[in-house]
Amino acid sequence: MRNIKLVVSYDGTDFHGWQVQPGYRTVQQVLEEAVAALTGESGVRVNASGRTDTGVHAVGQVVNFRSATRLEPAQLLRALNAHLPEDVRVLSVEDAPPGFHARFDARSKTYRYYIRNGPLASPFERQFVWHVPQPLDVDAMRQAASRLLGRHDFSAFRSSGTEVPDSVRTLHTSAVVETAGAVPWLVSTATTTPSASRCSSDAGSVLTYEVTGDGFLRHMVRAIVGTLVEVGRGWRDAAQMDALLQSGDRARAGATAPPHGLFLVRVDYD
Amino acid sequence: MRNIKLVVSYDGTDFHGWQVQPGYRTVQQVLEEAVAALTGESGVRVNASGRTDTGVHAVGQVVNFRSATRLEPAQLLRALNAHLPEDVRVLSVEDAPPGFHARFDARSKTYRYYIRNGPLASPFERQFVWHVPQPLDVDAMRQAASRLLGRHDFSAFRSSGTEVPDSVRTLHTSAVVETAGAVPWLVSTATTTPSASRCSSDAGSVLTYEVTGDGFLRHMVRAIVGTLVEVGRGWRDAAQMDALLQSGDRARAGATAPPHGLFLVRVDYD
Repeated sequence: MRNIKLVVSYDGTDFHGWQVQPGYRTVQQVLEEAVAALTGESGVRVNASGRTDTGVHAVGQVVNFRSATRLEPAQLLRALNAHLPEDVRVLSVEDAPPGFHARFDARSKTYRYYIRNGPLASPFERQFVWHVPQPLDVDAMRQAASRLLGRHDFSAFRSSGTEVPDSVRTLHTSAVVETAGAVPWLVSTATTTPSASRCSSDAGSVLTYEVTGDGFLRHMVRAIVGTLVEVGRGWRDAAQMDALLQSGDRARAGATAPPHGLFLVRVDYD
Repeated sequence: MRNIKLVVSYDGTDFHGWQVQPGYRTVQQVLEEAVAALTGESGVRVNASGRTDTGVHAVGQVVNFRSATRLEPAQLLRALNAHLPEDVRVLSVEDAPPGFHARFDARSKTYRYYIRNGPLASPFERQFVWHVPQPLDVDAMRQAASRLLGRHDFSAFRSSGTEVPDSVRTLHTSAVVETAGAVPWLVSTATTTPSASRCSSDAGSVLTYEVTGDGFLRHMVRAIVGTLVEVGRGWRDAAQMDALLQSGDRARAGATAPPHGLFLVRVDYD
């Protein structure tokens, strides 16, 4: 049996997350159906580096599955994409070592979370960017984000009600980057002549929170982002992040940010 | 009565085009409903610079309507966006001169059409970009596009079956621009190690056709784009564009490109 590794991108909008659930459309289900249709093999299980929740997107999810297919990687790439719906694309295919497992062997994962900070959210961003209209203190958010770097118990940022044996994780990157404007095709080039009787909406900026770590608890990135936004709004100080981590108390952190701004962008292996 | 001018952006995916049609969700309908809800005035008619078809998007559509509302432009901007669904946003509001009409006074309009040229279309582009997987000769497309500049009878590029009294239009811009890669959040940063057993899909490039003219016939931009792609695929020569224009024969031009790659980006007035 071959052990085949894929890098996969998906728009999470119309999926009930990664994991197979009877009666729901999930990414795992459509991938397993495409593999079955292609190889004629039944019961193929596709492992991901981790589950993504309903509405969460991926541009670099890694999965693996076992198959006896004789198709070359280039043929598999074409054929899988031909079988998959347009909201899931396989970006690359390779033969992995026999023992490779997309989840157990992941050394680090990188997520990005996009926030539109400005009075108006573009119609084209509404499924991919969290719209926060209130002014945000980006410097305070940067400081708060950097305090999460390193090895900590992230219990304060895990989904309440979940039981994980070990909640200690190490973050290698935890940074907020601010960029002006929007993606090119979302920008109107209409000339704006300032005038007393005219009011144009300021496009604002996009804040990107990028985080890389050796692992993440359930809802951890979204709880971090929700907390960073509360720092940005001035509801809490950046310096409080240390005490928050030490408390291990989910109730003391911020609200969980909505899923649609979150992208799994990369999974690294040794 | 005030004459109020708006610049509007919308994602055309879930609309049956601009114009009110009983039983269908249209952009005009949701705008008129928002104005009615806000002003309490019934029967308000919102004029656009032109209709857009089902699936066509706008980042700079211009509309006007008459109302006795006393709300300031800044209040109208906020209130209209609060009433509108997320796939339509008002970008600016201003008081226009009494005689201003969004359609009759338009001096020129600019459209953009996006094509993903490469083996793979990102899941995030599927509603906004036409995917053409076959290699395209971009230089030939550029040459063909430039032959449409100036004043011509565009009968060969109008929707068949439509009767327009005058099919002569003047194009001020007609250009194809090629850019590498994708919008930032669609790019996987996964490191790709070249290997014999690994196949990654080439991201390809985005071709943008930008066209500005004093007016457009129904389906004209999409017929031009369909023809340019046939030039790019080597099915026809750029030099044939002159004869095609002269023929005035829709059957000799290329297929109409799909609506979802088309954006109305700007309308200019004197």
